[in-house]
Amino acid sequence: MKAARYYARKDIRIEDIPEQELKPGTVAIDVAWCGICGTDLHEYLEGPIFIPPKGSPHPISGEEAPVTLGHEFSGTVSAVGEGVTDLEAGQSVVVEPYIIRDDVDTGPGEAYQLSKDMNFIGLGGRGGGLSQKIVVERRWVHPVGDIPLDQAALIEPLSVGHHAFVRSGAKAGDTAIVGGAGPIGLLTAAVLKASGLTVYISELSEARKKMARDTGVADQVFDPREGNVAGKVRELTGGKGADVGFECSSVPVVLDMLMDAVRPGGVIVNVSIWGRKPEVDMPSLVLKEIDLRGTIGYANDHESTIKLVQEGKLDLAPFITARIPLDELITGGFEQLINNNEEHVKILVNPNQ
Amino acid sequence: MKAARYYARKDIRIEDIPEQELKPGTVAIDVAWCGICGTDLHEYLEGPIFIPPKGSPHPISGEEAPVTLGHEFSGTVSAVGEGVTDLEAGQSVVVEPYIIRDDVDTGPGEAYQLSKDMNFIGLGGRGGGLSQKIVVERRWVHPVGDIPLDQAALIEPLSVGHHAFVRSGAKAGDTAIVGGAGPIGLLTAAVLKASGLTVYISELSEARKKMARDTGVADQVFDPREGNVAGKVRELTGGKGADVGFECSSVPVVLDMLMDAVRPGGVIVNVSIWGRKPEVDMPSLVLKEIDLRGTIGYANDHESTIKLVQEGKLDLAPFITARIPLDELITGGFEQLINNNEEHVKILVNPNQ
Repeated sequence: MKAARYYARKDIRIEDIPEQELKPGTVAIDVAWCGICGTDLHEYLEGPIFIPPKGSPHPISGEEAPVTLGHEFSGTVSAVGEGVTDLEAGQSVVVEPYIIRDDVDTGPGEAYQLSKDMNFIGLGGRGGGLSQKIVVERRWVHPVGDIPLDQAALIEPLSVGHHAFVRSGAKAGDTAIVGGAGPIGLLTAAVLKASGLTVYISELSEARKKMARDTGVADQVFDPREGNVAGKVRELTGGKGADVGFECSSVPVVLDMLMDAVRPGGVIVNVSIWGRKPEVDMPSLVLKEIDLRGTIGYANDHESTIKLVQEGKLDLAPFITARIPLDELITGGFEQLINNNEEHVKILVNPNQ
Repeated sequence: MKAARYYARKDIRIEDIPEQELKPGTVAIDVAWCGICGTDLHEYLEGPIFIPPKGSPHPISGEEAPVTLGHEFSGTVSAVGEGVTDLEAGQSVVVEPYIIRDDVDTGPGEAYQLSKDMNFIGLGGRGGGLSQKIVVERRWVHPVGDIPLDQAALIEPLSVGHHAFVRSGAKAGDTAIVGGAGPIGLLTAAVLKASGLTVYISELSEARKKMARDTGVADQVFDPREGNVAGKVRELTGGKGADVGFECSSVPVVLDMLMDAVRPGGVIVNVSIWGRKPEVDMPSLVLKEIDLRGTIGYANDHESTIKLVQEGKLDLAPFITARIPLDELITGGFEQLINNNEEHVKILVNPNQ
């Protein structure tokens, strides 16, 4: 089958590789669509980061580069392994793409995303969504019912936003300020809006501001060049400030703005990935008793996320900004994101086209 | 009456001033002992910080420099104003030294420490503990029963430690790592130990390490020069890491150590006051889903703190390292703390001596 394989920085090859074996307890999936994630782009430009380089196999998967890429994907069950009785061929599914030790409990309330040596399918080995087929352990497969398969490919990044929402402890009726309207900022805002919060977004890029407005994920979109965002948030909350803030930019001034914009006793969830140690406004964190919380991946978030989409509380279609076949992954995918990043939210790849 | 009055940086004068008026709803107290706080020292060396400078009266108290100093004090009720029926002359009390608007709710669960323009008695006006007498609103007066009045003067900084403990969400059986064994680090550790936690302390100073060991507030005291503190904490927790960390040093490498030493999903409470914006290890905060929480002052902590001492769960006596009369405030107090800071935990001042 065809697959996109990561060899090294700037060296991704579309190759013909053997299909994975259908073992007991696993599910075989024909991939429908796979999104390109910011993480994939970082691996392409600056990696390997999550990807185990040649000579350093991952302690759980045992694999090293080259590995198949792609962790945001949907597909159709083609076969189930021995012992899998609650799924059948033909069902639409998405994959929660974790590589986690067999003995780690993934039950309700378990923080398995924090378990030792956690990595992701499509980065750390075990195949990926940028291939025609994949075989995955049953526990990572989530049926999506009648959600169209192109939209279903966005369930993974939407679950990242859902997990950030859960980490914030926010509830319907609260006010949120989201810093940055890139893909994760927009999808986090979408979860917040669908969950009954008032949502404000701060963003500089014209294209991203337009997307935030057109998709309806924000009650208001602010441009920090046009005035003090924290001041506006206070004005709109009767002088109080937002209940929760979400850092989705990895830009220090955005984190500063959130520290200013949340109310005393408020919560800021950091959803972005930082490549360095930024200066943080600890004086405000202390005097306002702010909680600054990290969030990574998801943990038992997929079911709630799928339900939000199934119930029509949010529409994923507007976030799909391009569709390409696997052969165009570099030119129509990675190079597009490098040159026209702000025009895109999610580029979907069809590995069977 | 005699009182220590802050005029400006390095200008504190012992003066004779009029007694405050006993109004309805207030309590008159003969001050027994008043501790010198790190905040007082900052005001002396670098202030005014909390103190409203001449020409800029505080919006609640209406006062400006010169103001009476001292916010860590104990005393004996000498008279009660009209309407105060639950206190009587002769009772030993301490004061929760807040200046907060009359209409702010101070009931259970209320975060009144975060209310607008909050300041402290003994900094922002309304008298102070570094004077022979003080008159305080009833709601800030807490009886201490038979706790000796010298030890009772430490209830205020101990309540800061108690509030930090409450903010951490930690419980008996948890493991804590405290970064820094200055007065607040030691008193925070004392609350943690009295509350049933396993407590580790990291500290460089020989004198402070000795104090941490002698007072029994820590199960183990580590010197970061003698090995990796986070590694030791992991070793002692079966590879897991501490449940909670407490930053009590305002030193960036200590915050880094705490980020490393707490377990995935752990909590770090920042108890120290930062004069600048330090670089914070956001990559670890994200990947370990750490909660970094600010804490300031106290809110309904005094009763629980007093109870810990009354029940004999912690002994405040060893933390008193000197006793001086008011006339020696500068030489025996501030100058001692400047020149021999690490030898002292708490210097107590007797304004009636």
